[in-house]
Amino acid sequence: MSQNVIIIGAVALGAKAACRVKRLMPDARVLLIDADEQISYGGCGIPYYVSGDISDASELRSTSFHRVRDEAFFREDKGVEVMTKTTALSIDREKKLVRVQLKTGEKKDFFYDKLVLATGARPRELNIPGFNKKNVFSVGSLNDGIAIKKSLVSGGIEKAVIIGAGFIGLEMAEAVADMWEVETHVVEYCDQVMPGFVSKNLSLMAQKALEDRGVMFHLGESVRAIEGDDTVSGVRTDHGLLEADMVISAVGISPNCDLAVQAGLQVSEQGHIIVNDRMQTSDPDIYSGGDCVTITNLVTGKPGYFPLGSMANRQGRVIGSNIAGMSARFPGAVGSFAVKIFDYALAGAGLSIETALKEGFDAASIQVAQFDRAHFYPEKEIVFLELVVDRKTRRVLGIQGFGGKDSGLIARINAVAVLLSHHITVDAISNLEFTYSPPFASAMDIVNALGNAAENYLDGRLKPIRALEFKKYWENRDSGEVFFLDCRAAADGYPIEEKHPECWKNIPHDQLKSRMHEVPKDKKLILICNTGVRSYEAQLNLEAAGIKDTLNLGAGMAGLRACGIDV
Amino acid sequence: MSQNVIIIGAVALGAKAACRVKRLMPDARVLLIDADEQISYGGCGIPYYVSGDISDASELRSTSFHRVRDEAFFREDKGVEVMTKTTALSIDREKKLVRVQLKTGEKKDFFYDKLVLATGARPRELNIPGFNKKNVFSVGSLNDGIAIKKSLVSGGIEKAVIIGAGFIGLEMAEAVADMWEVETHVVEYCDQVMPGFVSKNLSLMAQKALEDRGVMFHLGESVRAIEGDDTVSGVRTDHGLLEADMVISAVGISPNCDLAVQAGLQVSEQGHIIVNDRMQTSDPDIYSGGDCVTITNLVTGKPGYFPLGSMANRQGRVIGSNIAGMSARFPGAVGSFAVKIFDYALAGAGLSIETALKEGFDAASIQVAQFDRAHFYPEKEIVFLELVVDRKTRRVLGIQGFGGKDSGLIARINAVAVLLSHHITVDAISNLEFTYSPPFASAMDIVNALGNAAENYLDGRLKPIRALEFKKYWENRDSGEVFFLDCRAAADGYPIEEKHPECWKNIPHDQLKSRMHEVPKDKKLILICNTGVRSYEAQLNLEAAGIKDTLNLGAGMAGLRACGIDV
Repeated sequence: MSQNVIIIGAVALGAKAACRVKRLMPDARVLLIDADEQISYGGCGIPYYVSGDISDASELRSTSFHRVRDEAFFREDKGVEVMTKTTALSIDREKKLVRVQLKTGEKKDFFYDKLVLATGARPRELNIPGFNKKNVFSVGSLNDGIAIKKSLVSGGIEKAVIIGAGFIGLEMAEAVADMWEVETHVVEYCDQVMPGFVSKNLSLMAQKALEDRGVMFHLGESVRAIEGDDTVSGVRTDHGLLEADMVISAVGISPNCDLAVQAGLQVSEQGHIIVNDRMQTSDPDIYSGGDCVTITNLVTGKPGYFPLGSMANRQGRVIGSNIAGMSARFPGAVGSFAVKIFDYALAGAGLSIETALKEGFDAASIQVAQFDRAHFYPEKEIVFLELVVDRKTRRVLGIQGFGGKDSGLIARINAVAVLLSHHITVDAISNLEFTYSPPFASAMDIVNALGNAAENYLDGRLKPIRALEFKKYWENRDSGEVFFLDCRAAADGYPIEEKHPECWKNIPHDQLKSRMHEVPKDKKLILICNTGVRSYEAQLNLEAAGIKDTLNLGAGMAGLRACGIDV
Repeated sequence: MSQNVIIIGAVALGAKAACRVKRLMPDARVLLIDADEQISYGGCGIPYYVSGDISDASELRSTSFHRVRDEAFFREDKGVEVMTKTTALSIDREKKLVRVQLKTGEKKDFFYDKLVLATGARPRELNIPGFNKKNVFSVGSLNDGIAIKKSLVSGGIEKAVIIGAGFIGLEMAEAVADMWEVETHVVEYCDQVMPGFVSKNLSLMAQKALEDRGVMFHLGESVRAIEGDDTVSGVRTDHGLLEADMVISAVGISPNCDLAVQAGLQVSEQGHIIVNDRMQTSDPDIYSGGDCVTITNLVTGKPGYFPLGSMANRQGRVIGSNIAGMSARFPGAVGSFAVKIFDYALAGAGLSIETALKEGFDAASIQVAQFDRAHFYPEKEIVFLELVVDRKTRRVLGIQGFGGKDSGLIARINAVAVLLSHHITVDAISNLEFTYSPPFASAMDIVNALGNAAENYLDGRLKPIRALEFKKYWENRDSGEVFFLDCRAAADGYPIEEKHPECWKNIPHDQLKSRMHEVPKDKKLILICNTGVRSYEAQLNLEAAGIKDTLNLGAGMAGLRACGIDV
């Protein structure tokens, strides 16, 4: 059994591994070193500390029983020695020594039997001028969060620019705009928020939820420079100048792999430390995990990158178990995620449609809208789900969704997420068994409805479009090529027909068969109802009547509304 | 392709199968017959109609777009013919005829190519005198629900007795006690609520949630007679007389299999129609599903019975697909369930510990308590989960839990439930990947914590007890055989030590090593903290110090509080 365990990095994975080792091997000497003074904090909580939801930074460093996780805590409660403000300089793998620079400046070598690299990642920096100006921040550590909040508290911040519309960008935009009433702009290089994670259709829903609360987006824009003297005064993009008293850069992170490279460990081209499923590096006595490693993407089978506190915690436990002589494994991940956006949540797992296509799958995606609970139950809300499938194999590649933060969305995403690595097909989604009772689900749950829609689509019965395609047809309605058939009740559909009689007709679905002669036969028909269910039945009825050039608006008017598309 | 499809029973499965057939085969003639006048209703919504949450019974019969699903709806919107108040009398399988008695009393034969038996189930009746008295109800149909509500609305109901503490019993108890301020008693033959679904420990939490709102329980009591003249006046049990102006019997249901038996189809000893995984009876032209069939329990591999609206809906779709020439399958179920109890939920899937032991597994169960979201996030609540595992194979057999109705409980149960048929082991639970962000989960999610605890238990590190065992030790504390070691901070633990110095000592966990000499070494130690995490660490530290006769209170003081056990 190893007696000397050194762990470099004490934020999430390092602290977890240290404690697990001590629990399993009470006699081991476990040394945890970190270059920072703040250790063992919940980094993912920083946006909620900045927003004021969490009032004191120490709460991010405390246990659930309100004990701050400082050196004394690790020593007294966990039996782990901690050295903060201590930098690991190099590793001598032959002699099994780590050279560190102590708080005092002194350099010292420590012997290890087992070593853990928990070096994490650092914020990416855009290669543009002006990043060092005052009030330009990134979100890499608790100290960054404390600095941002200090700046907001001190007043005088009226306009903020967030660079990047990924997780941290959106969370920081909400924090700054909501609690501090700062005019908040988000600049994103891609043409959507949360690029790579959700389809552009779903991204519109998240974007609208932020816009409804005053956040302004500048998508498809590149930042060229940070302007100002000592203090930032604006952000120059390829579209113009955005005034700003504060800039928060959230353009991704880069793994900290210098030590691993110096030690001659295998590192990927992008700088991720390579580990096996026991979380061992190419040196079996050196483990690594968390934001500095690449692990298998269990959907693609290729190397993936999942820098999340949850991964770090679970990997830390696996490392601790293995150091203690057990045989624990971490097979990989499918990339489950959730981001809160004011009262809403955007969540998903596996591949988005764009990512799946990039990965070479013959991919398609299907969207549905449905109440999360029984529609007759008073508390319920519409949730939007999108399933990404491979047409050929019918395999499920991913699921994403948008809905209320306390809706049934997360329960659905989690359940499909845990199945993705089991290589399930669409039929399994149609038949997924959820806890059922009207206060918790529909008898035909929205996930089942999603599987049913995907099956109907793959079998050629359902011919869907989504909100963005609808928008294009709607904008080109004067071309006379398309006609919109509204299958809702007259109270909903007729007012639009009155405004646009040349291209819009309301035939409530139960009247369709008797009014079939009113349906134009020479135009592409776009079928619409509130959530896409009645319009799907209309599509089948029209098909049976020989009217085959039809498209069904998948998530219906509910989807258009959520995306901010007006008719 | 079959052109004549007859479906007997039009509540959930029948209506679903009919619509699916028509969508896939627009030219088919689909006839839906039902003995009742009310069809296609959400029977699971009856308690919420009785409670007043749902104001009008027609809402249970309406679509999400507020159209009542009556004969006209099925004809106009779905192309399905419906005959209500029409009873199927017999089936002639050779001639493929169903003999029915029409609304008018006239008898008539209908020819079928494919037949669906959606005959459902009826409430079980206790074989005791007095069941026919006025104000004695069961909950078998929407008409029953309407009658119960009418009786409550008309006033004069001051005391109600519910017989049976399963799903419907608890839901009806909540409905009657909450909205109508009726003194409500529940009589149950078993010694716990929700017998067969959750452990006695978890059942106590549900029971307490109801007791806190005034519902009174009489567990382990047998009903002997319903007393009264024309109208009920009380319920006599083997323990005495309970006065009652209203009695609701909810002692389970029996499948309606008479037609199947008459037709010579295979039926189980208990009266469930036997179907294959295409939902075909022993006659391949006759399908069945819903509350009248037995399907495979995917945990045990044996025949199971899962009478739920969600099963009926999904099976109905499978039947419709197969009638239309597709090859859809319904492999079985693991028995996911959820029941709302005021502001709480009790939910689960697979086997409870008692059921697993009865099924012959070498089963054990482990309970944890943890916040559903990051403990530093302002909105969060403690959720209780119990995992049932097979000791030998480490296979996961079931999961059950209790928590707030809008907590993360359902998301956890669903995710484990969908994996149960994949025969996963405890390690997979430790490493289950959930959507993570502080507003939605902890970095080490409660499900992961549950897997970790189960692993620690199976490996012999964690020696747990649950609330009920604790209660026994506490009640026998004067025996001097046990000693309670409270690992919480002094503010929590010391007040109890002051009251019970002879058997209770408070040593905050971070002081344990330096105060090890204060720990009694000649007694069994019961270790306590708030949720069982610090007391587990104490257990390991004591073990390392040679003090091995210890038991850790799994869900801690939080678990005791939820069960209503006072110290």
